[in-house]
Order: sequence, then C-alpha cells, then structure tokens
Amino acid sequence: MDTIKLGFVGLGGRGRGLLKLICEMEDVQILGICDLRQDLLDQGSEIFRETTGKTATTFQNYDEMLNVADIQGVVIATSWVSHIPLAIKAMKAGKYAAFEVGGATSIEECWRLVRTHEDTGVPCMMLENCCYGRTELALLNMIRQGAFGELIHMRGAYGHNLSESLINRIDDNHYRHHHYHHRNGDNYPTHALGPICNMLKINRGNRMTTLTATASKARGLHHRAQVNKGSDSAEAGWTWENGDVVTTVIKCAHGETISLTLDTCLPRPYSRQLYVQGIHGLYMEDGSQIYLENISPKYDEWEAFAPYLEKYDHPLWQWFAKAGVKGGHGGMDYLVLRSFVESIRDGRDTPIDAYDAAAWMSITCLSEQSVAMGSTPQPIPDFTNGRWIDRPADPTCRYSLDQIHDDLFAD
Amino acid sequence: MDTIKLGFVGLGGRGRGLLKLICEMEDVQILGICDLRQDLLDQGSEIFRETTGKTATTFQNYDEMLNVADIQGVVIATSWVSHIPLAIKAMKAGKYAAFEVGGATSIEECWRLVRTHEDTGVPCMMLENCCYGRTELALLNMIRQGAFGELIHMRGAYGHNLSESLINRIDDNHYRHHHYHHRNGDNYPTHALGPICNMLKINRGNRMTTLTATASKARGLHHRAQVNKGSDSAEAGWTWENGDVVTTVIKCAHGETISLTLDTCLPRPYSRQLYVQGIHGLYMEDGSQIYLENISPKYDEWEAFAPYLEKYDHPLWQWFAKAGVKGGHGGMDYLVLRSFVESIRDGRDTPIDAYDAAAWMSITCLSEQSVAMGSTPQPIPDFTNGRWIDRPADPTCRYSLDQIHDDLFAD
Repeated sequence: MDTIKLGFVGLGGRGRGLLKLICEMEDVQILGICDLRQDLLDQGSEIFRETTGKTATTFQNYDEMLNVADIQGVVIATSWVSHIPLAIKAMKAGKYAAFEVGGATSIEECWRLVRTHEDTGVPCMMLENCCYGRTELALLNMIRQGAFGELIHMRGAYGHNLSESLINRIDDNHYRHHHYHHRNGDNYPTHALGPICNMLKINRGNRMTTLTATASKARGLHHRAQVNKGSDSAEAGWTWENGDVVTTVIKCAHGETISLTLDTCLPRPYSRQLYVQGIHGLYMEDGSQIYLENISPKYDEWEAFAPYLEKYDHPLWQWFAKAGVKGGHGGMDYLVLRSFVESIRDGRDTPIDAYDAAAWMSITCLSEQSVAMGSTPQPIPDFTNGRWIDRPADPTCRYSLDQIHDDLFAD
Repeated sequence: MDTIKLGFVGLGGRGRGLLKLICEMEDVQILGICDLRQDLLDQGSEIFRETTGKTATTFQNYDEMLNVADIQGVVIATSWVSHIPLAIKAMKAGKYAAFEVGGATSIEECWRLVRTHEDTGVPCMMLENCCYGRTELALLNMIRQGAFGELIHMRGAYGHNLSESLINRIDDNHYRHHHYHHRNGDNYPTHALGPICNMLKINRGNRMTTLTATASKARGLHHRAQVNKGSDSAEAGWTWENGDVVTTVIKCAHGETISLTLDTCLPRPYSRQLYVQGIHGLYMEDGSQIYLENISPKYDEWEAFAPYLEKYDHPLWQWFAKAGVKGGHGGMDYLVLRSFVESIRDGRDTPIDAYDAAAWMSITCLSEQSVAMGSTPQPIPDFTNGRWIDRPADPTCRYSLDQIHDDLFAD
C-alpha cells in the first residue's frame, strides 16, 4: 500500500475534525500541521498524538511547511478568504491542494486559481462534502439513469440558523462574522450548488451563463443580539450589511434555471432545500418527497423518497456502508477526503477541480455585484475557456461522480 | 334585505361555476348573462333556470347588457386579455366591476384600470379567491398578531400541471393556450402573490419596487404532445415560447423579498408553495409545516401546521364554517363573491381594488419584459401615485382582510 504524505493547514474547529479523519487513514501520513495561532497548533498536535500515537511536526509558517519535500498534497481548512491564495502557493510548490468550501471575493481570484492550475499542471480540489451526500449521490444516480428525464429547474439553499453562533461565539466564527458585517451576497453557495452542478454537468457539457441576486433586509442578527445580549449590549450596536435571505437565480447554457438561497440569520430548521425537476417529475428535500410520472402510484401526488434512496443508493455509498466507515456529517467528510487522497495516489486530476471550484465560488462575488447593482444580471465567466463543451469526466478518476456511475451501470 | 342586481359576462367553465354560486345567493338578482358564443349562453341559461327557476335575460353584446339601468355591478369571467377592457366599460357605465384573475399584457393597461376607477369614482375588484383561502387567512391572522415578527422573505407559486389540458383540451383552455405559444413570463401570478401582498401590506404602507424574472427552457408541453398524441401528430409540431418554470424575484420598499414561481407545464403535485418567513420563524405549504422560535417544542425543528390553523382560524372562516356555506375551491369562491356583493350593498370600495389589481397583474408583463431583457430588473410602477405610504384599509369594509381582524381582535 502506497503511503500518501500530506500537510495540513488551519486548525480551527472544522480543521481539527478533518485532521482527525485523515490521521485515522492507514495509507496517509501527515508530515506537518500548520496554523498561525500557537493555541490551535497545540490542539491539533494533541489530536495528532491521540490518533496516531506520534508527535506532530508543527509550523506557524505555511511556506516552511511547503518546503518539506516529501509532502505531496496540502489540506487547507483556514478562513474563507485565504483558501485560494494558500491553494495557489501549494500548486506552485508542486503539491496537490485541497481546500474547504467558501465563496470568492473577486473573479480575478477565481482566474488565479485556474491560471495556476494550468501553468503548474498541479491539480486542486474543493472539499465540497455535500457532493458526497447519500441523498445527493442517489439523485445523481437517478438522473443519469433517466428517472427525471431532461432536467429543467433546480433549487438549493444553505438554510442554517447561524444567528446564535454569529452573536454568541464570534471567536469560533470570526472568519464568517465579518463577512456579514461588511458584505451582501450569497457568501456560502456551494453546499447546494456543488451537487446541482454535478447533476447539470456544469463544465462538462453545460455551463452557468448569468445570474441575478436579490437580498432582503438584514434584521435577524440584530434581533438575536437584542434577545441574547440585551438592547444595551455592545452586540446590539453591531451593524450588518448582509441581507437575511439572499435569492440568486442562475441560468445555464442549456436553458436550465437554478434558484439558490442563503438563509442563515433567522430561526429555521436546517435544510439545503434541494429540489430537482425534470420532464418526468420532481424531488424535494423538504418533506423528503418525490413525484415521478408513470412510476409514482397516484397521479400528481407526492410519495416518500425513502424507498428511492434504497433503490438508487449510489455505489460509493453501498461500498461505504459495507466497509462500516464513519466520520463527520454522515460520512460525507470521509468520502470527500478519500477522493482527494486517492487522486494523489493515482496521480490523476480531482473530481472537483480548479474549473469547478472557480465556477462555484464565483457565485459569491457575482451575487454581491448583482445585489449592489439592484439585481442587475451578471455574466458568469467560462473558466474553461470553451472547453466545457466537450470536456469529459476524467476517465481515470476513481471517485468521479459520473465515472463511478459509468463503471457500474454501463451495459 | 336589499337585493343586489348584477350582470354576468363570460360563460366558459369557470364562469358557469361562479354563475351558479351567485344565483344561489338570496340577496342577488342576475339581470343579464352575456357571452359572444350562443352555445355558452345556452349553457349559462340552463344553470340559471335550474338554480333560480326563472328564465335568464341573455346578451351577446356586452354594451347592451351595460345599458340595463338597474344593473349595479358586473362579474367578468371572460378570457384573460378582456378582463381589464370589460371592467373599464363597466366602471364607465357606473357599475361595480369584478373580474377573474389573470395577468396584464402592458403597464398602460394597468394604468387605464386605475385611471378609470379614479375618473369615474366607481370601484372594481379582482376576484382573487386565494386571498380567501382558509390557510392564507389564518396566516394573515397570525402575522397581524405578531406570531412571525417582522416579515423578511416570502415565496409562492402556481404549481399546477396544466400540460394535459393545454394539449388535450385546447377548446376548453384556448384563452390560456395561446399565451404559452406566444409569450414568455409569469402569466398567472396572483394566486400566490395576492395573499402575500395582503400579508406584506402592499399598497397600504408598503409596495413592490423591482423584479427580475428568469425562464427555463420550454420542454414540458412538447413532451406532453409527443406522449399523448404521438411524435407525428399536429400537436407535436406546435412550438412554445413560455419557459416551463419561470422564477420571478420581487423586492419591496421595506426590504422584504418575494420569490414567485410559475410551474404549469411539467408533471407535479398541485401547490401554491406558500412560504412565509419572519424574524420569529417560518411556515411552509409543502409539507404543511411551521417553525416558530419560543413556541415550537423543539429547537429549529418543523412541527405540523394543523393545530395553528385551528388556533388562528380567521373569523371569516369561523363564520363561514358555522353558516354551513359551501362552494368551489373549498369555499374561497363563495367568500370572494360575497365580498364583492357586500361591497355593492354597502356602497363602499372593494377589498381587492384597482390599485391592488394593477400592481398584482403588472407582474405578468414586467416578468415578460425582464425575461426578454435577459433578467434585467424592471421597476414596478407605484399605481397609487404615492398614496401607498399612508393608505389605510377601508374602515367601512366588511370583508377587508385587515379590517375584520381589527374588528375582532383589537383590545
């Protein structure tokens, strides 16, 4: 068994969770962990020791960690705005770069990611764990088998009440906090958009062409501050630019529309509000229901999705359940990390590559621009420079979401 | 008991249903029924005879019916594009005008409605039955009692699979059919938008300011024609301009957003997809679920809406259920018609007046414009010319949705 040698940067809450998962992989060796803060480095070292029984090599300087010649890839779990700069440095150092999810602050930044990947020939990967969600993969499976027919309209959201954490635990959430304070757009589009883009074959035969974005007023965080901290508190004096609910509508080259929502400041049940609609019917995450013409028992009536999840369970998940593997977020975190590790092992490109990351992340700054311009439509760049038209899924890609489907279902 | 004397025009399927409901009202006398087609006039006469035991006075010429001096009001259930012209004629003849739902084809047409109302001083009313839906009214009740707190984001739709009727029964549905053939926008916005505008106090302290609209490709009706009629059929050769799913996002003066969907060409369960979100929580029609912070038993978890419907049942519906009244669409049709009849009886303005009708109907042509201009934002005219800022609900209005609330719940 080949051993994959990684570096790890960013040891906040999310980073430590991912670090633990990687440390538990038998074929991976962590040659360095890195953070600017000594207290987080200490916490990361403790996890490393507990999991591997060994002592971590620690770095406060990222460039020094990249100088460790044996490191083949770097996992980046730092704050949002540093994902792309750190990934670029890694690729320039010849190391595969994997980075946590988030949005871009400019289109130029997205192009820099693509340009560096093209100039260096080194792959990178966005660790969009929701692309590996059991439901998302089962739906992808159904779509590729034609259950929905031609796709027409999709919806998704990041519907997650973060108001408590943004007001009460700003030290944990500081990287997120100041975006709400200064910016106004969909700052976290990829949990919903990533799986939808896979379903619509974005960058692989289709692409997103334009969007509009519209932000509601911002009330939720001020309200939370008043309720939790009192009207006279410092927190109640904080101001917020980001609308509580941001609605982004995307049009694709083949005429599909995607309606995307950011909804993180108000009380609400968690939901990514996934909604898949094709010529034969539709699926809806809220209520976990589906209707498929000619299959569902009653004309134009919902039925439960659960049996479909069993029937169309993705091979990746069948394998995952059989292997008895566990991990955060119902297994998605493990799968997305394995996908990165095995891309390095096999010396191939990643399933969520520079072009995907650039396109998905660009929605953040483009939605900001549209909101700032009164919902004026914004063009979404073609980060593939025309190659989306006939760009196939990498045929050697073990975890390519399409490829595993082709392997197991063709003929 | 005063008798209200009405004329009735438009005796298609919908018209005949409404005619029967009105004929059954003891305090209403129908002095004329009108349609261009003799066969429909005959069917209308038969309903009139069955219900009242009398013979109807029939007209093929609308102007002649308007010449009947005793007619106080006219109910208009004709095809979409004739609603406004016929309502204008009625108001000019000094008769209250009620018209069925639909969208406008131009902003000028909306202004003509408003201008005629202002010039003549005669009221008109859009018969938007969904404003009288039990759920919609209970939610309005909850909103006015503060259950949701300040409103932030709303959603609604006309989600109704009309593909069978648009392909198989074009004679029944011809007025709708050619809109799909020629136009591309949200041709039927008011079932969802009307109740939402009441909730947001549009034209009574708030207004809609801008919108964007984005249409998906059009596939559903062609697919239906192929499946139902065969690939070689004439129907399979028909072309369709209207996108299967049209998403319109509206911004309001006080910062609320409304996401509106037209979804009528694909197989799907019927849903108006009503979604009400405020600072304290949210309601969702799909799944009939609600979450209210500090009230719902589990933190950030949905609960069933049914107990809330009982608890907050609107006084209008309590009265309606007690009186044992029936009628189409679960009683909404009866309530909206009674509201019109009693507006005439009391000599007051209607609860869904010229300004409401103009604003709601304008969404159709504005969404068309936005789609045609690649989702460019369109300004929504202020049809009140500034009076929305302090325009109250008519305090003498028996069925004013707000007024009945104030009557029964204040102090």
